[in-house]
Amino acid sequence: MTKYDVIIIGAGPAGIITGVTAKKQNPKKSMLILMEEPKGLVPCGIPYIFHKLNCVDDDAMGPKPFIGLGGDVKTDAVTDVNLENKIVTTKSGEKYSFEKLVFATGSTPVIPTFIKGYDLENVFYIKKSYNYISNLYEQLKDKKNIIVVGGGFIGAEVAEQLSLNENKNVTLIESEENCFSKAFSSELSKYATETLDKTGVKVLTSTRLNEVKGSNGKVSSVVLGNKEIEADAVIMAIGYKPNTELAKKAGLELNKMGAIITDNYERTSVKCVCAVGDCSKTIGFLTGAMDYVMLASTATAEARVLGNNLFGIKVKKNFVGTLAVFSTEINNVAFAAAGVNDNNASLANIEYVSAEFVDVDRHPGTIDDSSSLGVKLYASPVDGVIIGGEVWGGKSAGEIINTISLAIQKCVTVYELISLQVGTHPLLTTAPTKTAMIKAAEGIIGKLRK
Amino acid sequence: MTKYDVIIIGAGPAGIITGVTAKKQNPKKSMLILMEEPKGLVPCGIPYIFHKLNCVDDDAMGPKPFIGLGGDVKTDAVTDVNLENKIVTTKSGEKYSFEKLVFATGSTPVIPTFIKGYDLENVFYIKKSYNYISNLYEQLKDKKNIIVVGGGFIGAEVAEQLSLNENKNVTLIESEENCFSKAFSSELSKYATETLDKTGVKVLTSTRLNEVKGSNGKVSSVVLGNKEIEADAVIMAIGYKPNTELAKKAGLELNKMGAIITDNYERTSVKCVCAVGDCSKTIGFLTGAMDYVMLASTATAEARVLGNNLFGIKVKKNFVGTLAVFSTEINNVAFAAAGVNDNNASLANIEYVSAEFVDVDRHPGTIDDSSSLGVKLYASPVDGVIIGGEVWGGKSAGEIINTISLAIQKCVTVYELISLQVGTHPLLTTAPTKTAMIKAAEGIIGKLRK
Repeated sequence: MTKYDVIIIGAGPAGIITGVTAKKQNPKKSMLILMEEPKGLVPCGIPYIFHKLNCVDDDAMGPKPFIGLGGDVKTDAVTDVNLENKIVTTKSGEKYSFEKLVFATGSTPVIPTFIKGYDLENVFYIKKSYNYISNLYEQLKDKKNIIVVGGGFIGAEVAEQLSLNENKNVTLIESEENCFSKAFSSELSKYATETLDKTGVKVLTSTRLNEVKGSNGKVSSVVLGNKEIEADAVIMAIGYKPNTELAKKAGLELNKMGAIITDNYERTSVKCVCAVGDCSKTIGFLTGAMDYVMLASTATAEARVLGNNLFGIKVKKNFVGTLAVFSTEINNVAFAAAGVNDNNASLANIEYVSAEFVDVDRHPGTIDDSSSLGVKLYASPVDGVIIGGEVWGGKSAGEIINTISLAIQKCVTVYELISLQVGTHPLLTTAPTKTAMIKAAEGIIGKLRK
Repeated sequence: MTKYDVIIIGAGPAGIITGVTAKKQNPKKSMLILMEEPKGLVPCGIPYIFHKLNCVDDDAMGPKPFIGLGGDVKTDAVTDVNLENKIVTTKSGEKYSFEKLVFATGSTPVIPTFIKGYDLENVFYIKKSYNYISNLYEQLKDKKNIIVVGGGFIGAEVAEQLSLNENKNVTLIESEENCFSKAFSSELSKYATETLDKTGVKVLTSTRLNEVKGSNGKVSSVVLGNKEIEADAVIMAIGYKPNTELAKKAGLELNKMGAIITDNYERTSVKCVCAVGDCSKTIGFLTGAMDYVMLASTATAEARVLGNNLFGIKVKKNFVGTLAVFSTEINNVAFAAAGVNDNNASLANIEYVSAEFVDVDRHPGTIDDSSSLGVKLYASPVDGVIIGGEVWGGKSAGEIINTISLAIQKCVTVYELISLQVGTHPLLTTAPTKTAMIKAAEGIIGKLRK
């Protein structure tokens, strides 16, 4: 039986980054990543397989950087973990012993077993699996009427991409009033939903899926209230849950959401076992309460913390609560958000003052190839600390939200923001007189003074 | 004689933003901006007048937002300031009295009187003046052989833009080994210089201008060492100096560079007088020593501080030293820098550890319309605090440098950066596994551990 100092189960972003970081810090330790399939997928790239990339392999990712550092990788599913004897057993019957074990088993799509017809042929999910998505990519080629259920990022992006192919009627169903309402404010979700509706996707909001109907065991239509729509395929994109069957079986403690409970350094209550990424628990950055954020960016941040601290805490974790930072692009308009907005604030009873500023992302405004750019900031009504932000418009939104994220994580106030020194250039940014983040901060100061 | 609570001399970014901010905070105070010309120019847009905008008026800016708030504006040059009686006199003979006076008189091009022929006809400067630049724009139309002297941002950008017009031979002369060496590290200045050289501009580095030769009082050639090049026009872009003749005459204290000495709130030693932007003193963010940075972005940050605090300090200034944040785009490659790099570090005897990471600005790497993207970070060798950064490649560089700027201004360490939570998206950013700023921070940590 081969013994490894570290065994990592899973080769998604969390598993690979844990491996790479730990191996860099501890080159002499032997490390193994066990992955279920020979290839993985860049999770957030999956929607773009269906049109922009138009190829599954262009979205493939793997543990090459880990192997380059001297790590071992085997394609074999783990079927059993014996924590007492520190042994993992795989599907092929191999056994490996470990000093430290890392669960990086990710998440799996929520399957709505409560909906009649959920198990018909041609009901699909966006599983983060190379083999599954390769098959889905082939299967969807001859499907004309496609129903996507769920207007979160994955659902909306998959729907948009599919609609860009010829001969597809794509309908997106969202039970809330707007798509993206778990990530964006009511105003921004409305704008993003309208933007999506201007693509080839038919967007049906405030609409529930009652039933998937079949004929010969295959999807034939969906029932929405008293309406029935013809369907050749249904893609369920209603969320993900931690993939923790194996951890549960091994006896690890899970929270109410089924995520493995860990401390700030991704360590479970079992000394030699850690859990990182989507399969481990998340707590909200502001509330400190249990949360459900599952993002590759968050997973990699956790993985860097774990990788650095696997053999003893050396680098303090910079965040306790997880700050969800979202971004997407729909119909060439970028949308991004971090932290608090009116939707999630009311759910968590968070008070805020907000202000927004809209201009263009280049300057002077007369310059060609400029796009509209808006920033909305949310701050504490007491001390003016930035607690949330939204950005929309040109592609710069994708990086501006990261400046705002850093501001949130470092408790920057609106008072500090107004004398923030930034770089500006006609071909790259808004004018220095109108930097949207600073103007939004000014707007908040104006409101706080009243 | 009309009396104003506030008179601002100058309507560049510093003057306008001071006026707008102060008027918003103090709507009942009467305020006047005195400007020399009826129209102003967006300073960093000036190079783009010569090709991309191809029009002077598209780069025009004015105090409209100030007027919208109820501020008065007059086009009249100030000829005298009497601090004792609190009166300004203008060219047209008007007199205005003030409670508070703000110098926002900007900067003017350095004129190399030590070079023979500097005063010939068709030797030009990049003055931040609508009238001057309008004339220059017309004058350059029929000039074929144009020599630009000075490879800083303005010189390089003007040269690049001019070279994009038909029938122009543009030669840029830089005395240092590379262009941009006052803003970028040796490596990045080299890359930026090579990039500029790939445009239509002929770049001559390590080359000094000895003389401008004329014929009938007009430029006919330039002498560079033992070489002579035919020239129809020479554009001097060798730097700017504070425009403080008037302030000096009024008796205000200037520093060695000729800038008006102020405190952190832009107040001079004369109680009722402030100075803001290029005409006021600058001190380095890290060293606290006298510095020469003149940037619209810095000027507007100072102006917001002044505008908020003109009638009593209410909002603490967030920076004492000025952090120079530069960005530009040459031949469709963006270049940006903030704070310390190897060039300025050696001048100021600043120790640092640096590391860089290069990838692409979208993900997966197979996605189309992606550009290369590199980040280099500089950190203190003792506590790992970020003290500088450089970004190059795609347009995202223009906003990524601002995340780095915020990190520098908030003393973020490389240890904090590795668990920074960021947002990522295939069409907007690098992959979360390879966020360049975080990978560069990791690189520094690796070096610090050795």
